[in-house]
Amino acid sequence: MHTKLSKIPFLLLVLTVILTFLFPSVPTGAQQEGLSPADTAWMLTATALVLIMTPGLAFFYGGMVNRKNVISTMLQSFICMAMISVIWVVFGFSLAFGDSIGGFVGNPGTFFMMRNVLDGAPWELAPTIPLALFAMFQLKFAIITPALITGAFAERIRFTSYTVFVLLFFIFIYAPLAHATWHPQGLLFQLGVLDFAGGTVVHMSAGWAALASAICLKRRHEASHSPAYITFVLLGTGLLWFGWFGFNAGSAMGANGLAATALATTMTASAAAALAWIFFDGVKGRKPSAMGTCIGAVVGLVAITPAAGFVTLPHSIAIGVISSVVSNLLVELRSRTSIDDTLDVFPCHGVGGMVGMLLTGVFASKGVNPAIPDQGLIFGETKLFLVQLGALICVSIFAFGGSWILLKVTNFITPLRVAVEEEQLGLDLSQHDEKM
Amino acid sequence: MHTKLSKIPFLLLVLTVILTFLFPSVPTGAQQEGLSPADTAWMLTATALVLIMTPGLAFFYGGMVNRKNVISTMLQSFICMAMISVIWVVFGFSLAFGDSIGGFVGNPGTFFMMRNVLDGAPWELAPTIPLALFAMFQLKFAIITPALITGAFAERIRFTSYTVFVLLFFIFIYAPLAHATWHPQGLLFQLGVLDFAGGTVVHMSAGWAALASAICLKRRHEASHSPAYITFVLLGTGLLWFGWFGFNAGSAMGANGLAATALATTMTASAAAALAWIFFDGVKGRKPSAMGTCIGAVVGLVAITPAAGFVTLPHSIAIGVISSVVSNLLVELRSRTSIDDTLDVFPCHGVGGMVGMLLTGVFASKGVNPAIPDQGLIFGETKLFLVQLGALICVSIFAFGGSWILLKVTNFITPLRVAVEEEQLGLDLSQHDEKM
Amino acid sequence: MHTKLSKIPFLLLVLTVILTFLFPSVPTGAQQEGLSPADTAWMLTATALVLIMTPGLAFFYGGMVNRKNVISTMLQSFICMAMISVIWVVFGFSLAFGDSIGGFVGNPGTFFMMRNVLDGAPWELAPTIPLALFAMFQLKFAIITPALITGAFAERIRFTSYTVFVLLFFIFIYAPLAHATWHPQGLLFQLGVLDFAGGTVVHMSAGWAALASAICLKRRHEASHSPAYITFVLLGTGLLWFGWFGFNAGSAMGANGLAATALATTMTASAAAALAWIFFDGVKGRKPSAMGTCIGAVVGLVAITPAAGFVTLPHSIAIGVISSVVSNLLVELRSRTSIDDTLDVFPCHGVGGMVGMLLTGVFASKGVNPAIPDQGLIFGETKLFLVQLGALICVSIFAFGGSWILLKVTNFITPLRVAVEEEQLGLDLSQHDEKM
Repeated sequence: MHTKLSKIPFLLLVLTVILTFLFPSVPTGAQQEGLSPADTAWMLTATALVLIMTPGLAFFYGGMVNRKNVISTMLQSFICMAMISVIWVVFGFSLAFGDSIGGFVGNPGTFFMMRNVLDGAPWELAPTIPLALFAMFQLKFAIITPALITGAFAERIRFTSYTVFVLLFFIFIYAPLAHATWHPQGLLFQLGVLDFAGGTVVHMSAGWAALASAICLKRRHEASHSPAYITFVLLGTGLLWFGWFGFNAGSAMGANGLAATALATTMTASAAAALAWIFFDGVKGRKPSAMGTCIGAVVGLVAITPAAGFVTLPHSIAIGVISSVVSNLLVELRSRTSIDDTLDVFPCHGVGGMVGMLLTGVFASKGVNPAIPDQGLIFGETKLFLVQLGALICVSIFAFGGSWILLKVTNFITPLRVAVEEEQLGLDLSQHDEKM
Repeated sequence: MHTKLSKIPFLLLVLTVILTFLFPSVPTGAQQEGLSPADTAWMLTATALVLIMTPGLAFFYGGMVNRKNVISTMLQSFICMAMISVIWVVFGFSLAFGDSIGGFVGNPGTFFMMRNVLDGAPWELAPTIPLALFAMFQLKFAIITPALITGAFAERIRFTSYTVFVLLFFIFIYAPLAHATWHPQGLLFQLGVLDFAGGTVVHMSAGWAALASAICLKRRHEASHSPAYITFVLLGTGLLWFGWFGFNAGSAMGANGLAATALATTMTASAAAALAWIFFDGVKGRKPSAMGTCIGAVVGLVAITPAAGFVTLPHSIAIGVISSVVSNLLVELRSRTSIDDTLDVFPCHGVGGMVGMLLTGVFASKGVNPAIPDQGLIFGETKLFLVQLGALICVSIFAFGGSWILLKVTNFITPLRVAVEEEQLGLDLSQHDEKM
Repeated sequence: MHTKLSKIPFLLLVLTVILTFLFPSVPTGAQQEGLSPADTAWMLTATALVLIMTPGLAFFYGGMVNRKNVISTMLQSFICMAMISVIWVVFGFSLAFGDSIGGFVGNPGTFFMMRNVLDGAPWELAPTIPLALFAMFQLKFAIITPALITGAFAERIRFTSYTVFVLLFFIFIYAPLAHATWHPQGLLFQLGVLDFAGGTVVHMSAGWAALASAICLKRRHEASHSPAYITFVLLGTGLLWFGWFGFNAGSAMGANGLAATALATTMTASAAAALAWIFFDGVKGRKPSAMGTCIGAVVGLVAITPAAGFVTLPHSIAIGVISSVVSNLLVELRSRTSIDDTLDVFPCHGVGGMVGMLLTGVFASKGVNPAIPDQGLIFGETKLFLVQLGALICVSIFAFGGSWILLKVTNFITPLRVAVEEEQLGLDLSQHDEKM
């Protein structure tokens, strides 16, 4: 059964190799004009930094599950680095950043097989770096988004089904959202939605997909356990925090004051959120914990993502604290429901992203970023906040509803859930024949 | 008891959030002049690199303690990323780099709540990068310094008391030292003390605080054990070495030849120190070990820190070897005393920093760095060496005496040491309810 | 016995320290002309990134061996960071990049004790970055090459003998190959061999040395076991992938479009190779595994190394897939021979490097890199392919034969293999008195 199914992706890869010979995309050798070596230097670095976030996430999640599911959870992150990169070359970059089709999705032909990329004009909104570098920076965002979802269905999803879902999620949820938010003709971009580094595209979409997954896949048979390796969670948090500087400060698309601002707000929001989480735990009578510090820090990183280049440092602290308290409360609430979002992806990433989007509508300031058209609520303006709220509602419905449908489709193609005995054996052995 | 105490820092965080609304520090949107995109590119990277040192240190120390104290030791490092960042925004950056009050400390109002930072003129000694970026680079140094101390009182300090001590140490030891050393009006700076990247401010201050802590907290009840996870020590060393390039080469404040020199001397000093440690172990009849290699490498990194931008590559090797042999000897000596400096922070970081400071006075060369006023002993000049020696003595007294007082004050507020049964249970469980 | 031998390297280190005083290499303080701050910014970063590859490799290999040999395997990588760096300062950089002696090796006097490095003119092929930075970037390549070999003789080599072999390998194999390939007067460089980032120098040379080692050291007594920690392999792969961006994109020697191209091809080749490995495993009836994903990714990184700045993105996918399938087949074949290449260094690194060299001769395109003299087979030219093939044959004979001789010489000086009881005890305890 497994062997049979594994032939489909295998044939897709064979097809891709054939395509690489039919469409080699050899550039003309023309030099790109107007590039800034300094901006290129920073964006090369930022792209590397975002890459390390996915292994970071693998350790962050892998440390939290049961010992018999650590490897499978980590592989679910790593495989995204492999799968999405190949899709990105074939048609993925085009779907997200190709010529706009109605502001909703890119034309898959624009950069099909990465043609026009090595020698193309720079991307309109990143005019000083090579287009290929922009494409690689964006690829890292496309990689981590499905990886973020994996925390929700950890310990019970079939690996093959997971890869099918990742493919569908990328095509039907991620690519349109990235296009709508970051393409100059994109629907959300045109509306004036502010999302500095992917609060909507990355975190909200992953969060809602996670909620849909947790509901669709139903509860694990044995849901309670302690984290496998808290030290892995600490390592993962360190790598995520480190890589997030590339994620947020890289979204300035150059080595400038805006990148410095984004790096600074990222640092302080994360710090404040980590403190708020353990203090709020303290209020509830719990001891300060490494797990709490790590989860809090990541929630802060999520929440500052859409706001990083728009708010002041004190406001970034407010964003960190508010998002942390809200997520902490929702994790508590979630645990009282029957929804088995294994690693609380929705309350942390989804809600963190939403709180960040709304607070961007509260705190965004033209003093920090003169390029933005409207300011936040605290400056007495309401337009931006309403735009952010509207975008939040639309994206939530799209991401949750879309993911739900894709999960049902995936389940129709190949069952999402492992058998009971496979779950009891653990996914490491049952899915991968591997063992800690 | 614990819950009660945890309310104090909680109230401080609430106060901070209130402050963020009262003092939002919205910039004017004015563009900063004279920035170099290339220098900014490197300093963004360097800042990220220094951040990863703290998780690196967490693994370096965490791997050395008893298995029941790994998480607590690591959390002591991580919590500094959270605490110091928030303090830095409120008044910390001002204390270290605000307008000088007598060359001893900065005016806490200068950058209160980071006002004048996002749109302020660049820092006088880092004129080509945004002030916010300079503030973040410096923040990373302020974070790792108290984290370095944790190795001395590992396995027996109460977590809450630790956080109180960190706060006091930052305000009364770190901030004045940073100000005196790096502010153009600072006392040590005015004297012509050379400290390229923080041998005094970071390593000597942490080392002396460590010695004071080890004495004040007294011995553990069971002091002997083997390191929990040598692989963690290897990981930590790798991350520290990697991040140290940002620490030292970043202290050139730009992407120039001086940064290249500092990166090079950092590499070679560390390498030579690692070799010297295991060879010296070999002379004593011990087998070459991973622990020795790692500790030696870190001692070399510590010792080259004050000298990195002032000495030649052959001299960096001499610095690495000399510091390694001295620290190796002192670790041996320390183990014969009754002082329980758990992870030998004083002989490694403190003495490493001191040897580095003195050898800077021996090897510093105008050929390497034409900007320095005086050269080292080997060029027949004595002034610099005496200045370095004088600074060493003053800073040692200040850091040791000051830390001693702060420990006593902390102990008065809340007991420093866990109860015997908590120590036996391990700090992971007793302080954090967590387990490997 | 051990103590006696450890005195030889100790005396070498003492000699080095004496040399540092005799030849301090104090520069004139002259400013280097024509440097680009932006290129310097990227190359500082790239140098740091390549450094982290060696700890990454330590975890990649360390996770695969038996639990009683994890630390010793990791230390074999780490010790290269220490040893090669010191050799590099004394005469290593000169041997590789000094004035050419017949196109075969550099004059050891040119940069003896790093004279003329801090104030020298930039390297001819890296004219916009400080020479010291070029020297450090190249050092990292010299470090990782012997570390790559360690997978072949893991679990049975004596540590002291290993260090002797590393020294000999560096002097007689690595330095000449680096000189011949990368020095403008080098033999292979003159022939027009294309090797963007070290497929020949690093991967082929390590691969052939690995094969020679596996044969010379004979089989382990108990050769079968499962990997100690698959999570370490995942961590190592993440760090290698991350650092490889510095390795390949740094080989553009600046922050330019070529660096962006190299970064992009590195990403996509690695991704495609990871997928191809597990799909090919699937065809053979195996489950997709974390080990397969990791090994596949690294094979792809190896294979794209010589080609990174010369081929298009679709062709990089072809390179990744082809190299992965070839290596997967050869790992299978190797396991049926009596050769005990513990971690399959030859089929992965050696063959990966060779496939990459040949495919560079197939796919290299002037459209991608107008600076190259000839194009690949698919553009109807045969010269380049024949040059690559010829270089491959010569380098293979040189690296395999040379390593064989050096292993015999080492074995004559000090036995290569541990005693049977030491092997059974594990190298961690028998060589280093350390334990997981």
